Amino acid sequence: MTAPKPVTRPTRILSGVQPSGKLHLGNYFGAIRQHIALQNTGECFYFIADYHSMTTLQDPTARLANTRDVALDYLALGLDPNKATFYRQSDVPEVCELAWIFSTVCNMGLLERAVSYKDKLDKGLEPNVGLFSYPVLMAADILILRSHLVPVGKDQVQHIEITRDLADRFNRVYNREIFPLPEYRLDAESRIPGTDGEKMSKSYGNTIEIFAEGKPLSKTVMGIVTDSAKLEDPKNPETCTVFALYSLFATPLEREQLADRYRAGGMGYGEAKKALLGQIEAYFEEAREKRKSLVRDPGYVEEVLRVGAKKAREVAKVTLELVREATGFIARPVV
Amino acid sequence: MTAPKPVTRPTRILSGVQPSGKLHLGNYFGAIRQHIALQNTGECFYFIADYHSMTTLQDPTARLANTRDVALDYLALGLDPNKATFYRQSDVPEVCELAWIFSTVCNMGLLERAVSYKDKLDKGLEPNVGLFSYPVLMAADILILRSHLVPVGKDQVQHIEITRDLADRFNRVYNREIFPLPEYRLDAESRIPGTDGEKMSKSYGNTIEIFAEGKPLSKTVMGIVTDSAKLEDPKNPETCTVFALYSLFATPLEREQLADRYRAGGMGYGEAKKALLGQIEAYFEEAREKRKSLVRDPGYVEEVLRVGAKKAREVAKVTLELVREATGFIARPVV
Repeated sequence: MTAPKPVTRPTRILSGVQPSGKLHLGNYFGAIRQHIALQNTGECFYFIADYHSMTTLQDPTARLANTRDVALDYLALGLDPNKATFYRQSDVPEVCELAWIFSTVCNMGLLERAVSYKDKLDKGLEPNVGLFSYPVLMAADILILRSHLVPVGKDQVQHIEITRDLADRFNRVYNREIFPLPEYRLDAESRIPGTDGEKMSKSYGNTIEIFAEGKPLSKTVMGIVTDSAKLEDPKNPETCTVFALYSLFATPLEREQLADRYRAGGMGYGEAKKALLGQIEAYFEEAREKRKSLVRDPGYVEEVLRVGAKKAREVAKVTLELVREATGFIARPVV
Repeated sequence: MTAPKPVTRPTRILSGVQPSGKLHLGNYFGAIRQHIALQNTGECFYFIADYHSMTTLQDPTARLANTRDVALDYLALGLDPNKATFYRQSDVPEVCELAWIFSTVCNMGLLERAVSYKDKLDKGLEPNVGLFSYPVLMAADILILRSHLVPVGKDQVQHIEITRDLADRFNRVYNREIFPLPEYRLDAESRIPGTDGEKMSKSYGNTIEIFAEGKPLSKTVMGIVTDSAKLEDPKNPETCTVFALYSLFATPLEREQLADRYRAGGMGYGEAKKALLGQIEAYFEEAREKRKSLVRDPGYVEEVLRVGAKKAREVAKVTLELVREATGFIARPVV
């Protein structure tokens, strides 16, 4: 007699992307790169959070453009639709039904304590109900696919905790084990400096865009703020924004060589910036070319998203039928 | 040359019913009777609000039973599926998607001021998010069918005002005239007394159920509280609960005859109660027989609801495609 073999299930990983405009180096090194790499380690689902974007953006043209951009960006940066499922949130409307159902097992206090909502209140934003109940929709995004792992930044950890709360609460209220309690995987805490030395962030206007090139890119890079050391002065690489950004791209050897030239004096910041520019261009060259070819083939991008939506929707529909059976709804009539 | 003929559209009327258990005379004379009568005056949609029921009921067996009961009750009481569209809310999940979209144009203040929510807080209920955002789902119920008229009780008037606010706000934000601003039609303010003389209400435990019969019905009617006048005493019909209930069913002539006997003395309350019992039984006899035959034919009831859902969903899908186009979503892929 042998013990039954444990069933090993692939880890299902979910990551959502807000379609909020041009991506920058901070997005890339802080999150995107690691998220895309996960496609090699589990069953990955990536979605473009266009329902969520409604909480802050009420311009349909911008939403369409941003959604298209983020699809192009991710595919260009290496998201492989043969490995991962890539879809628009709004092509899987089942999440809205699950969000309603979760809202009925979610105490008001759970959302009232959400830091992201309190932050928005503190910033004086006139809050809409979507902004308030956003963590419930996020829980539905995660749980409708019965995901196990969600890579997130620190600011999203509380939302994963809310998701676990709702999964657990639903399972207990309706006495089923439908939902796993998903774990989060914290993005590496790498602070990417912007052109002014502060954390790179669109709201600070200090970003270097991934897909900028030519004049606009060189203008941005050459405009990085440095100290007022003269050309001949020795310089400190550890405190220099240009060097910090260079380090993201360079090999360890290149990094050491540039550090030596900083310390020796005789090299101006202009030269360091040019070296950084060269690194950025080389690093993203392939992605840029890929993006240009994708732009010429919108039918392909749309097809990727449609196939992705179909796959995600198949999982979502199974989840919802389990939920509907558990909560006392009739099996969906085929119409 | 003649002026173009004005296009007359039929008034689209929507009425939702909570599947919350046995219906009583207060429900019937206060609302149901008038709501069903509307099927002769416009294009009517009636739905069983099973999504809404989740805000207060977390028992799947009870939800299924209540939903089935309310379907039987309405069909027995005269809802004619050849005249009106009758469906379960949860068979038209598009309302959840529209509810999310409305939540992003709904300021928190609008819901925080909702009296029904504040009442529930005051009663010490632990509020869930569904209870809070319920008016947004109600607005979606009404507007996904682009309804013009909603018959409601006084306690629901504020929700229709919220619905109008959201319709108007959506139209303005997205610069389209997708939604009409629906009107409400206030139910006749007829106070139906319960067996203790207070307003008939399930929460007071003083109801007379429409579909009760035999011993349980006669026990309830014979237990109506009256004053302590003796058999021979003249009695005041105007202050008597039995008389008030009798008046709901009787012809004007019968009513006058019973009033005369009250005033004359010599008739005990027991006799008046028996007269009332006779009226109730005669009035609902046909409905009770109809209900029994419907119970024997669950396939028919299910078919009515499925056909209704199909019709409602066709309208809902058109509305949603208009909304998705206006808000910057891609036309739904057919999956």
